Amino acid sequence: MLTLTTIAGVRSRREEAARTGVRIALVPTMGALHDGHLALVRRGRELADEVWASVFVNPAQFGPGEDFERYPRDLERDAALLAGAGASVLFAPATKEMFPRPSATVVDLPALTGGLCGAHRPGHFRGVALIVAKLLNVVQPHVAVFGAKDWQQAAVIRRLVEDLDMPVRIEVHPTVREDDGLARSSRNAYLDAGQRRAATVLHRALQRAAAAAAGGERRRAALEAILAAEVAAEPLARLQYAAAVDPDTLEARESVSGRALLALAVFVGATRLIDNIVVEVP
Amino acid sequence: MLTLTTIAGVRSRREEAARTGVRIALVPTMGALHDGHLALVRRGRELADEVWASVFVNPAQFGPGEDFERYPRDLERDAALLAGAGASVLFAPATKEMFPRPSATVVDLPALTGGLCGAHRPGHFRGVALIVAKLLNVVQPHVAVFGAKDWQQAAVIRRLVEDLDMPVRIEVHPTVREDDGLARSSRNAYLDAGQRRAATVLHRALQRAAAAAAGGERRRAALEAILAAEVAAEPLARLQYAAAVDPDTLEARESVSGRALLALAVFVGATRLIDNIVVEVP
Repeated sequence: MLTLTTIAGVRSRREEAARTGVRIALVPTMGALHDGHLALVRRGRELADEVWASVFVNPAQFGPGEDFERYPRDLERDAALLAGAGASVLFAPATKEMFPRPSATVVDLPALTGGLCGAHRPGHFRGVALIVAKLLNVVQPHVAVFGAKDWQQAAVIRRLVEDLDMPVRIEVHPTVREDDGLARSSRNAYLDAGQRRAATVLHRALQRAAAAAAGGERRRAALEAILAAEVAAEPLARLQYAAAVDPDTLEARESVSGRALLALAVFVGATRLIDNIVVEVP
Repeated sequence: MLTLTTIAGVRSRREEAARTGVRIALVPTMGALHDGHLALVRRGRELADEVWASVFVNPAQFGPGEDFERYPRDLERDAALLAGAGASVLFAPATKEMFPRPSATVVDLPALTGGLCGAHRPGHFRGVALIVAKLLNVVQPHVAVFGAKDWQQAAVIRRLVEDLDMPVRIEVHPTVREDDGLARSSRNAYLDAGQRRAATVLHRALQRAAAAAAGGERRRAALEAILAAEVAAEPLARLQYAAAVDPDTLEARESVSGRALLALAVFVGATRLIDNIVVEVP
């Protein structure tokens, strides 16, 4: 696996790939890799000839008081994991390489980012949209693979790519979970043993609300109340939001129908965890 | 010259060009072509193997009450002019092809668009940034050529491309003028004979302010007053703004130094005309 740290280096390698007709899948990450990321790499290998992964802890998507400083970083371990999963190129730029000066360009999708995580992390998705647009323009992959755990992020990126006619396919891979249902996340590393047990409440709450939906419950408020009640029953957990919305537009309607996204953000101690599930409402 | 009306058609032709190593210059226009546009095409031919021009009157960059409806359209004439100037491909999509639904993505450069035309045309440069990003992503040219008459537009696009790491070079070509100094513009067609004579006031005002700058005048307010006084002396003209700013950041400072952009927007009758000049302040 080739490790590159400069945009110029990526562009040069990318031109080589174009000359030889090699198709590329990009897996953008913030590092601190886990099995969820590696599943994206494996999916990328099915979709393209080479998988290029990026590791960049993007300051533009962290708010004041969030965990940018303490976000786990271990590039050596990440590189070994990516090589093991079959990635061909690792792009690991320094902050100054991606942001030699602050961006004057703001990329915003207000209709998709007013709710869910966007309501609690002002500016977060502007930071996400900006860095993803930059990485897609630097790497110019044929396909880019994102995880479904960050559903709102995936919805934002899908719409960004469509609206700007970016020449790339966006693939969203199902959330990879621990045996007890906890969604894999780099932030799980923050949890102590008791918190780790408590963190299963997200998946449990989603399963319970999904069962209610499968049983015919269509009222958004009722589905959100089921999510909230399950989280409330876990002493170490504190709900930030529980939502039932349209999976594509992320719009809330009084009554859900067809496909619905059930989504949660929960603090377990100081650690903010998110999870979601898409259900068919009969 | 090949005329294409669909994004899919452009992408397919673009893949062919990639296979054969053909380098492409894009000249994005709103049609109603004049010698200024054709100079961009000729410059494109110096910079690349093929020039692809687009003709699209972009609704997203017109405000309410502006001239979107009556903006001059004559695709047949435009196509003949482009072919004559040596363009290889004309991309002329319908509105629905570029905007099958309203864009949820907003691309904004607030620091560059608060002044000059941006102050008087709210949302205009968001529309420009959006359509240029889309066209660059559809055509994927090696270089794109813009005219210096729309200086703020060129500054916005240069910064957009830099901030988003878009893989394209932006070339800005000097303003092409009539013999009496009037900058070529599609909107000159709106002028009657008396207005056409009055319209030379823009160039005259810029020349006078440039002479003052060359003579050592550094005070922004004084340079702007010279521009305003010259326009005020023309009965058919009404000043919208006169500005002396940094040519790259478009920032106004009390005292100009180094390179300065002198820029004007003037109504002649109902027709809004703009012009500018870059001067070296000794």
